[in-house]
Amino acid sequence: MAVITDILRAKRDSKPLSREDLYRFASGIADGTVTDYQASAFLMAAYINGLDSDETLALTMAMRDSGTVVQWDKSLSPLADKHSTGGVGDKMSLILAPLAASIGIRVPMISGRGLGHTGGTLDKLESIPGFNVNLTLEQFKEQTADVGVCMIGQTDRLAPADRILYSLRDATSTVTSIPLICASILSKKLAENPDIIVFDVKCGTGAFMNTREDAGELARTLVRISKMSGKKASALITSMNHPTGLTAGNALEVQESLNILRNKGPADSTDLTVALVAEMAAHAGIDNGEELCRESLLSGRAMDVFVEMVEAQGGDIAAFEALPLAPVVMDVRASRTGYWRGPDALAVGNAVRKLGGGRYRVEDRVDPLVGWEQEVPCGFPVENGQLLGRVHAAHRDAAKEAINTISCSFRWDAPSDALILEEIR
Amino acid sequence: MAVITDILRAKRDSKPLSREDLYRFASGIADGTVTDYQASAFLMAAYINGLDSDETLALTMAMRDSGTVVQWDKSLSPLADKHSTGGVGDKMSLILAPLAASIGIRVPMISGRGLGHTGGTLDKLESIPGFNVNLTLEQFKEQTADVGVCMIGQTDRLAPADRILYSLRDATSTVTSIPLICASILSKKLAENPDIIVFDVKCGTGAFMNTREDAGELARTLVRISKMSGKKASALITSMNHPTGLTAGNALEVQESLNILRNKGPADSTDLTVALVAEMAAHAGIDNGEELCRESLLSGRAMDVFVEMVEAQGGDIAAFEALPLAPVVMDVRASRTGYWRGPDALAVGNAVRKLGGGRYRVEDRVDPLVGWEQEVPCGFPVENGQLLGRVHAAHRDAAKEAINTISCSFRWDAPSDALILEEIR
Repeated sequence: MAVITDILRAKRDSKPLSREDLYRFASGIADGTVTDYQASAFLMAAYINGLDSDETLALTMAMRDSGTVVQWDKSLSPLADKHSTGGVGDKMSLILAPLAASIGIRVPMISGRGLGHTGGTLDKLESIPGFNVNLTLEQFKEQTADVGVCMIGQTDRLAPADRILYSLRDATSTVTSIPLICASILSKKLAENPDIIVFDVKCGTGAFMNTREDAGELARTLVRISKMSGKKASALITSMNHPTGLTAGNALEVQESLNILRNKGPADSTDLTVALVAEMAAHAGIDNGEELCRESLLSGRAMDVFVEMVEAQGGDIAAFEALPLAPVVMDVRASRTGYWRGPDALAVGNAVRKLGGGRYRVEDRVDPLVGWEQEVPCGFPVENGQLLGRVHAAHRDAAKEAINTISCSFRWDAPSDALILEEIR
Repeated sequence: MAVITDILRAKRDSKPLSREDLYRFASGIADGTVTDYQASAFLMAAYINGLDSDETLALTMAMRDSGTVVQWDKSLSPLADKHSTGGVGDKMSLILAPLAASIGIRVPMISGRGLGHTGGTLDKLESIPGFNVNLTLEQFKEQTADVGVCMIGQTDRLAPADRILYSLRDATSTVTSIPLICASILSKKLAENPDIIVFDVKCGTGAFMNTREDAGELARTLVRISKMSGKKASALITSMNHPTGLTAGNALEVQESLNILRNKGPADSTDLTVALVAEMAAHAGIDNGEELCRESLLSGRAMDVFVEMVEAQGGDIAAFEALPLAPVVMDVRASRTGYWRGPDALAVGNAVRKLGGGRYRVEDRVDPLVGWEQEVPCGFPVENGQLLGRVHAAHRDAAKEAINTISCSFRWDAPSDALILEEIR
């Protein structure tokens, strides 16, 4: 079997790596026989010289197999999960998971914390008092079987090689490599082991991928490698030039999610969530997925599943709805009359992070109460002086700074982007 | 100033690095703000995408300036040093340094230990009982002024960034990069700060560079970057398909060096050493360097300087000459009649290392007494049964194994290589 220096030499010289090479690499990372500095040399060589589909698949499977792969009873199928590349106001997981479960598709979802503009799914869930995201894999499996949905945080048992590689990529400038991104995302999803994976690949100012081209390439790679690994998979490419929905900030986004589950949410968030669940449904052989979703939102069945999940995980929705507002809530009004496209996604993301709603470093704690709440959806005509939204902040100076950042990014008088740009199957 | 991730990104994307970038990198390595894994990512990116002359110069200077640069009194000029890329039987430094000093060129020489087939210059010197290679930089400067020559081991004060980068290169498969090799060699030589640097770049089976082309590229790069840094420099490309001289092994090579200094050594070692000192002399404006060297060897002046250096550094030549032979000395005889080209350099190197004369790991101790001693120089006609050489070993089994390795590599009936293949100025 090749030793690690042979593997590094081969990738350095653009020679093909075998499945065995990549298993040797990933298992060596997990067991410590491949050092951090060797892993970094690999990441840089793979970044520069690329990994082809076979290598990307092998690396993904090897990273998956560096830890536990969850095994599900056949009777629980179809099991599905969604991965989003992340954006500002992206609270889809909170709605999607119970909505899919309500139409018969179980969703075992393992999420990360946000290290970026705004909080991640776990941060949002934790704004619900008592909500426990630290279940064991056994509890995770049990609840997925019983309730149809369970949402927890990453565990050291799944894809440990990914945790180490992921921690090195930022500091070694090897983040923006499609094969490495794909292996990182998919190794964790494959360890979770659903039958169906749907991707929401965002592009725009507030997304990881700024251009449609890059997002398309990532989406195609994710779908291709997922299928090669034996999963049913597809992707939506969606726009992230403006925040999705009306809120950005942890508790504000949970509140918006509750509104959507009560069928009283903004159209864009609702439509995107329904579209993602309909993708899952199509893979599961359910043709009328969108119709079933609309019915479930209308009847309250999706909301019932959400409540059941929150209760099973120790959360208290009544306590959440009794949460106070942030200490300062400050209005933002239109300074002109016209067709308001809304704020830029990146500007809102930066403002919310500065308010304390996101992280600069992994050890930062997020403030659940702060954020941006829009009164008028993007793409509507407004009058000078009209209330556009509110900043929720811990104190006045922070609120003023956020208002300045967000207001300066307002765009006017141009057609809005479509939210769903392309479907990749 | 660019942060390290910007520097990694630039080299990753083949964008030029500035002098400031490379100083930031090297100083960060020395002060620990650039981690091992970031350094490794840089090494791999630099290996794959290369470093141009300006970048190589800047990296070399930055690595030099990560520690102390020795300052010499003008009155001590010309100061010269030699660097060899290393080979089997390469004992030139031991002769060259006192020989150059004997014709008026001071040689302050800082050497490494061998991690390869046979011992390094320090290992050879340490086979002289009492010889101390661990002087302070202040003692090093004083002795160079007083005796004209001083030979010591590497110190943490000179080019500390090189020590760290060098330690990472083997494990990250980034050794065989001409710019990285050049920066490593030259940063230490520039910290030592002589006026003149002469390179002996070896090519062949027993050399770091196997081909003439690779050796030529390294030699041209070393000379070019040395000149760009303000030094007088030239290189000889020399053959390393057979061991140089008649011995390979630490004490055996010191004995051969004493023979050469007494003008009783083999022609090839003597000629190569004289040629290297003549290069130094030409840079110092001395036209008849070769003639002066031959006179110095004949008159015993070079030997006098060697004795003076050994005594100044605590060594005892009489004790060295009274050393016992290795426990087993076994003859090797010709198994045919013909024109004997001698053993292969790599085979001798491997055999001597296996005998205990070289290292497999940095912490290995070398046995000074073992090695290979040739009776007949390479390229002479021999009779069947004639004594060709002797293996010096710690026990009979080791001797037999070494004899087998060396004998199997004998070459016959073809013209010998010239030793000096090319001069690069």
